[in-house]
Amino acid sequence: MSKKWVYLFKEGNASQKYLLGGKGANLCEMTNIGLPVPPGLTVTTEACTEFYEQGKKLTDEIINQIEANLSILEEQTGKKFGDIDNPLLVSVRSGAAFSMPGMMDTILNLGLNDKTVEGMANKTGNKRFAYDSYRRFIQMFGDVVLEIPKVKFDNALETAKEEKGYNFDTELTAEDLISLVDEFKTIYKEETKTEFPQEPENQLLMAVEAVFRSWNNQRAITYRNLYDIPHNLGTAVNVQSMVFGNMGDTSGTGVAFTRNPSTGEKNVFGEFLINAQGEDVVAGIRTPLPIDKLNEVMPEIYNQFIEAAHTLEQHYKDMQDIEFTIEEGKLYFLQTRNGKRTADAALRAAVEMVDEGLITKKEAVMRVDPKSLDQLLHPKFDQADLEKSVPIAKGLPASPGAATGKIYFTADEAVAAVQRGEDTILVRKETSPEDIEGMNKAKGILTSRGGMTSHAAVVARGMGKCCVAGCESINVNESSKIMTVKGETYTEGDYISLDGSTGSVYKGKIKTVEANISGNFSKLMEWADEFRVLGIRTNADTPKDSEVAVKFGAEGIGLCRTEHMFFEESRIFSVRKMIIADSVEQREKALAEILPMQKNDFKGIFKVMGIRPVTIRLLDPPLHEFIPHDEEDIIDLAKDMNVSVTKLKDTINGLQEFNPMLGHRGCRLAISYPEIARMQTKAIIEAAIEVSREENINIIPEIMVPLVGKKEELSILRKLIIEVAEETKKEFGSDLQYLVGTMIEIPRACVTADEVAEYADFFSFGTNDLTQMTFGYSRDDAGKFLEDYKDAGILEQDPFQTIDQVGVGKLVETAVKLGRGAKDHLHLGVCGEHGGDPASIEFFHKTGLDYVSCSPFRVPVARLAAAQAAVKN
Amino acid sequence: MSKKWVYLFKEGNASQKYLLGGKGANLCEMTNIGLPVPPGLTVTTEACTEFYEQGKKLTDEIINQIEANLSILEEQTGKKFGDIDNPLLVSVRSGAAFSMPGMMDTILNLGLNDKTVEGMANKTGNKRFAYDSYRRFIQMFGDVVLEIPKVKFDNALETAKEEKGYNFDTELTAEDLISLVDEFKTIYKEETKTEFPQEPENQLLMAVEAVFRSWNNQRAITYRNLYDIPHNLGTAVNVQSMVFGNMGDTSGTGVAFTRNPSTGEKNVFGEFLINAQGEDVVAGIRTPLPIDKLNEVMPEIYNQFIEAAHTLEQHYKDMQDIEFTIEEGKLYFLQTRNGKRTADAALRAAVEMVDEGLITKKEAVMRVDPKSLDQLLHPKFDQADLEKSVPIAKGLPASPGAATGKIYFTADEAVAAVQRGEDTILVRKETSPEDIEGMNKAKGILTSRGGMTSHAAVVARGMGKCCVAGCESINVNESSKIMTVKGETYTEGDYISLDGSTGSVYKGKIKTVEANISGNFSKLMEWADEFRVLGIRTNADTPKDSEVAVKFGAEGIGLCRTEHMFFEESRIFSVRKMIIADSVEQREKALAEILPMQKNDFKGIFKVMGIRPVTIRLLDPPLHEFIPHDEEDIIDLAKDMNVSVTKLKDTINGLQEFNPMLGHRGCRLAISYPEIARMQTKAIIEAAIEVSREENINIIPEIMVPLVGKKEELSILRKLIIEVAEETKKEFGSDLQYLVGTMIEIPRACVTADEVAEYADFFSFGTNDLTQMTFGYSRDDAGKFLEDYKDAGILEQDPFQTIDQVGVGKLVETAVKLGRGAKDHLHLGVCGEHGGDPASIEFFHKTGLDYVSCSPFRVPVARLAAAQAAVKN
Repeated sequence: MSKKWVYLFKEGNASQKYLLGGKGANLCEMTNIGLPVPPGLTVTTEACTEFYEQGKKLTDEIINQIEANLSILEEQTGKKFGDIDNPLLVSVRSGAAFSMPGMMDTILNLGLNDKTVEGMANKTGNKRFAYDSYRRFIQMFGDVVLEIPKVKFDNALETAKEEKGYNFDTELTAEDLISLVDEFKTIYKEETKTEFPQEPENQLLMAVEAVFRSWNNQRAITYRNLYDIPHNLGTAVNVQSMVFGNMGDTSGTGVAFTRNPSTGEKNVFGEFLINAQGEDVVAGIRTPLPIDKLNEVMPEIYNQFIEAAHTLEQHYKDMQDIEFTIEEGKLYFLQTRNGKRTADAALRAAVEMVDEGLITKKEAVMRVDPKSLDQLLHPKFDQADLEKSVPIAKGLPASPGAATGKIYFTADEAVAAVQRGEDTILVRKETSPEDIEGMNKAKGILTSRGGMTSHAAVVARGMGKCCVAGCESINVNESSKIMTVKGETYTEGDYISLDGSTGSVYKGKIKTVEANISGNFSKLMEWADEFRVLGIRTNADTPKDSEVAVKFGAEGIGLCRTEHMFFEESRIFSVRKMIIADSVEQREKALAEILPMQKNDFKGIFKVMGIRPVTIRLLDPPLHEFIPHDEEDIIDLAKDMNVSVTKLKDTINGLQEFNPMLGHRGCRLAISYPEIARMQTKAIIEAAIEVSREENINIIPEIMVPLVGKKEELSILRKLIIEVAEETKKEFGSDLQYLVGTMIEIPRACVTADEVAEYADFFSFGTNDLTQMTFGYSRDDAGKFLEDYKDAGILEQDPFQTIDQVGVGKLVETAVKLGRGAKDHLHLGVCGEHGGDPASIEFFHKTGLDYVSCSPFRVPVARLAAAQAAVKN
Repeated sequence: MSKKWVYLFKEGNASQKYLLGGKGANLCEMTNIGLPVPPGLTVTTEACTEFYEQGKKLTDEIINQIEANLSILEEQTGKKFGDIDNPLLVSVRSGAAFSMPGMMDTILNLGLNDKTVEGMANKTGNKRFAYDSYRRFIQMFGDVVLEIPKVKFDNALETAKEEKGYNFDTELTAEDLISLVDEFKTIYKEETKTEFPQEPENQLLMAVEAVFRSWNNQRAITYRNLYDIPHNLGTAVNVQSMVFGNMGDTSGTGVAFTRNPSTGEKNVFGEFLINAQGEDVVAGIRTPLPIDKLNEVMPEIYNQFIEAAHTLEQHYKDMQDIEFTIEEGKLYFLQTRNGKRTADAALRAAVEMVDEGLITKKEAVMRVDPKSLDQLLHPKFDQADLEKSVPIAKGLPASPGAATGKIYFTADEAVAAVQRGEDTILVRKETSPEDIEGMNKAKGILTSRGGMTSHAAVVARGMGKCCVAGCESINVNESSKIMTVKGETYTEGDYISLDGSTGSVYKGKIKTVEANISGNFSKLMEWADEFRVLGIRTNADTPKDSEVAVKFGAEGIGLCRTEHMFFEESRIFSVRKMIIADSVEQREKALAEILPMQKNDFKGIFKVMGIRPVTIRLLDPPLHEFIPHDEEDIIDLAKDMNVSVTKLKDTINGLQEFNPMLGHRGCRLAISYPEIARMQTKAIIEAAIEVSREENINIIPEIMVPLVGKKEELSILRKLIIEVAEETKKEFGSDLQYLVGTMIEIPRACVTADEVAEYADFFSFGTNDLTQMTFGYSRDDAGKFLEDYKDAGILEQDPFQTIDQVGVGKLVETAVKLGRGAKDHLHLGVCGEHGGDPASIEFFHKTGLDYVSCSPFRVPVARLAAAQAAVKN
């Protein structure tokens, strides 16, 4: 028996997505559940594969099956291909298993030729319409089947209009169009050296081949590479008899959603036009009417449509996006698919569908894109106001949300402006830890340098503050307090607006709308928690951040960066004294001043977190980050500290590094200056003991050593930490428990994780640094070539946003295997920026980590993504 | 049967090094080949292990065996422990399988007590000698067995001398020494609360225990960690009857080598003293006589000694270092071991021993330390002159050799000085490619920053020029043209001297001696080539370097850095034009100017190398390295280039990076600016075609893409290279063959080497960068903490000198396995600095690489090390 290459719509169903494509399967499904669908047939994806196997040729068997099914279609419609009185006209559309831009889209009115166009004119009584359809068909066919440049046809059309003095296509008369058809056929012949095919069956076979060929055009291949769609799936071809919504006042066309795609409200939402074709809706020449008006003009059709919409939603168990046409009082469905929706709508629909009993909680959890939650948690621009605004530049969407305010170029000036009651945007080339206060006070942050994990991006996300980073087309001059964009200059006090979710920068003010978290949100989050396996912690350095994160559902702190506490104005002086100390004694004296401050910081965090685990990382950044570098600031500091400018400069010079990222930082500091690690350990242990007593709980602090590459580093520091901790406990008469672990962020630590595990109670993967070193990319400099790399198809995504599973991921897997091999109860987490990225979270789930940790505002994203990862795997 | 814990010297032999220790095994061997060795016994290393297993206690069985063998010793010597008339006195020495400083060394005259001291006085007729021996014994025993601070005894001795008004110990009379013995015994009692042991058997057992305990003292443990000696080997104890060289004019003592340890000349070389003990030789109070004088005073003994020396060398088949004592006209051998020797001597002895038929070529190859070859290939200081000089600072021994000259702080001034006929030392904080000319002209280079693979170090080694790098104790001020060291200031024109083999910096001039390569050298190298499996290539960027390398035996070029050619004064202008170009067109115009220059460079190299393979790396460093950064230079350049200073500064700012090592460099440049890679490919292919024709040979150039981390980078650039190469071949009507491969220097490339291999004809491991990224160490900044890391025992060696086998090595192995798995004929080499390091070369041999590539002056080192690796494995 020969293979079935062609299916009539009534022969297939929705489960045959891979064989019939998504569109074809849905047309079959609608046909079979009894909805009125213009009859048609689908040439299978297997026929596409066969087409390629035969050297891009349709086999006789496929051609025969197409023709045989075409005969059935003629019977079903009572029309005939090439019949002058009652011609069968069809649309031809591609349809793969996955929606895939780049392939050939649609040819309408196939079947028209010099004779049937007359039949169509007679049948519709509208010669103009018939010839307009014909010239469009020639153009579409020429363009997509034979790759004749569209512009050739457009030029002919424009010339015709100019000659007649017309402004709009609609002014063209039937006669104009008849001669235009002739011209189009001439163009066709000039370009292809053949006559425009008059035989409808030829037209059809040529169109089918064109669809199959388009499967392997460059755009489609690139798209599949980008989205990891296998190249051997092939596309199906849908051939459907045409229906016309423009056959008078009992005809029409429209689109509708079964629920409101903006709000999720359960109410059919859509619009229609009487006496119109789909493209009229798109062209925007006439204004469509809201769908309920249909009740007034065609109540019967309306009821029929509403009922069918309900049927479709119940049938697909999801909000549907439906295309329909009414031809002379008869309703037809041309397409149904799951509707695109805003985050608000996705959330509301998912939760309400569970309440309606339509879907399960598990299904609801899978219905909301975790990334879209950002829209719910941050301010947005007022849509109307936004539409009036023009973006002046685009940077990286570093931290979501919308902000508007006056620009200031230094943190101090931004803070002063906020104190005057102004809304401000802090604009910097790049931010540094000295800018924290200004960042905290500003509404939004804009930098011209740095990537998704630059200082500005990381800190802003931690604060839940809007940030556009690495906006290279803006030239920031901090000293003269101006920025220039495309030749235009903005000075201090000028208004701009930022969209941190898209990276767009706008001139002037745009109204913002505050975030509004509904009850549906917490319901969905609870359901997510039921399914997820991964724990969710947060990266938080202050009691305030910790509180926000707990509110969002964080189960602990995975990364508390102690250095952020060093920058507060009240303590930076002591920190600097420590750094320029000449001897261990001097350094210890300065550290003794810092100790009570750090201890209080930790107490504040412990109080918020209670018995939730808190992982505190020892000092990580290179010391020069704490010292000013401007001449003026250095002179001030020297005066303040009572040292000579020369000595201070010598110290600063001595601290300078060619590649600070690979320099004297992390645990290397603790090895060189063990007194710093001792002070921090003491502060942590004392804080934990005191809060445990005050609150009558058992806090178990987790002390984390950063940047370990050799087991010896950890063994030495573990010993030091335990020594200090035990001394402190003895002093306090406490039996506090604590853990000592390490960041895994150096490639060497990954490949020797079995050795490192010997001295670690836990690992926390620092995937930011691990990505930097595994790729050899500086996160602050990669902006210079990442765009070139995306353009060249080398990188599909920024590896600092979504973990590179093939390379960095392999090192993570190696470390997990070696680490757990050496110590099977080893607790594993991740605290890099990837901890808040859904695709990365799925990878971490599969890799068997115990938890992910992310910035507070990403906690809900992580909860949902973790749940989806668990359901999927 | 009980285990044998104790061996008489006549019971063991040289093969029992692990059981009897090196010293004991050799004493046994000498005894058995019939040489006169004072009888003795060895307590085995197994007894040491047993001692620790029993909780640091000697078992009864061991004690019994010691005592039983002691009785035999008494019989052999005719003396008795504790016998007043004829007391047996012994020396006790530790002796592990490997020579190991840090353990207990020697106790002499054990067996002396208040009674036997009198017997000794009678027997020798020298009371002073007997009591001096006794007081030394008490001090040594108290110090090493009971850890009584040596200073206590020394103080008592000093007090005694002061009271008598003596200047020298030798002035002490017998009576003085008798009362000093009393005082020493009192000190002993005060410190240990016990009497000084009078029973010789007790003394012996206590000494044996002390030797065993010293196996695990901190210094010994550290030493074993450092040299990877297993901790469970244990040490043996050698107990040998004393002989005395100070019993009158028929007695004496001496040391001798069977060949000259400085030159290797075959001639017994040594010195002796009549009527003296070993320590007199060491103390330097009397001047020893050359060994041939012995022929005059004791011709019989001399002949006996010469014959024995010959026997020993023939027996051990290596140059021996022999200790002997003559007691009353009788010759005794106390120790023999393989003699330490200079590189010259090692080479000459090894080659001559083959000629003599004493050893095989293979053995000769194993006899010379590859690292020592540096001494043969570079100038050295005149030894006498050196001894008069004091080092003022110590840096890293970055490139071997000795140099002396006037200091200059800029390359330009150094060049000018050389033109005036001065010898110069270029002193810089760090060098940059702009300094090449000055480095080339200077006698030596000194930098205060940077590590073993810093720019200065790498370039100097390439030039075979003396360099001390990272000399952090020197403060270099380039603008005021001074350097300060320990408070002393050196200005331009002052003389200093550098030893690049040790890292020492000296004040003033020191005479240097030119390198002198003997025929033995090439003989040994030829033999090495017979055994080695690894190919040896060189890293060379100029025809001159290539010539030197070929002379040293390089079989090809493994790394030709094209960027070094960009810096020549005549072309840097074009290079800068290329960099500040605004458009692809402008850049291509500048590149067109560079093309003929690069092509000529390549032609020069191809002409030298002939059909030897030449691997040329495409442009690697970040572009900002080619642009000046000083205000003044920028203004000059702007004028030169006819652009505004502002524009030039903007360009320079745009090129600046936070972490250039992880920035826009390597193949990333070729992706962003494919026109650069195109120009370089064209230059390489044209040069290869032209030289192939001119010389009538078939050159197969190897084009290498640096810094690949993703297979896509290589696939894109491979395509580009092939396109340009094929075009060029067509243009020339040539059928030239060529290879396209990649550096493997990014961790990600290692773990995805199977993917990368798909597009590579060869891999060349760039272990410098791979080490940087695997450890997360910037080679230029790691100086700040590497010393702390060595002190803390975290790093045993600088991973930039010797490859870290556990971490970086694992990534190399992974890449080899994945790469060869994907493509089994994949050609593999290494071109990092490790290619010239013997320990690393052994690792690369074991890993199965095809070749190593190193700087020209290291080629001989690599040849020898590769041969040794092959013989060993």
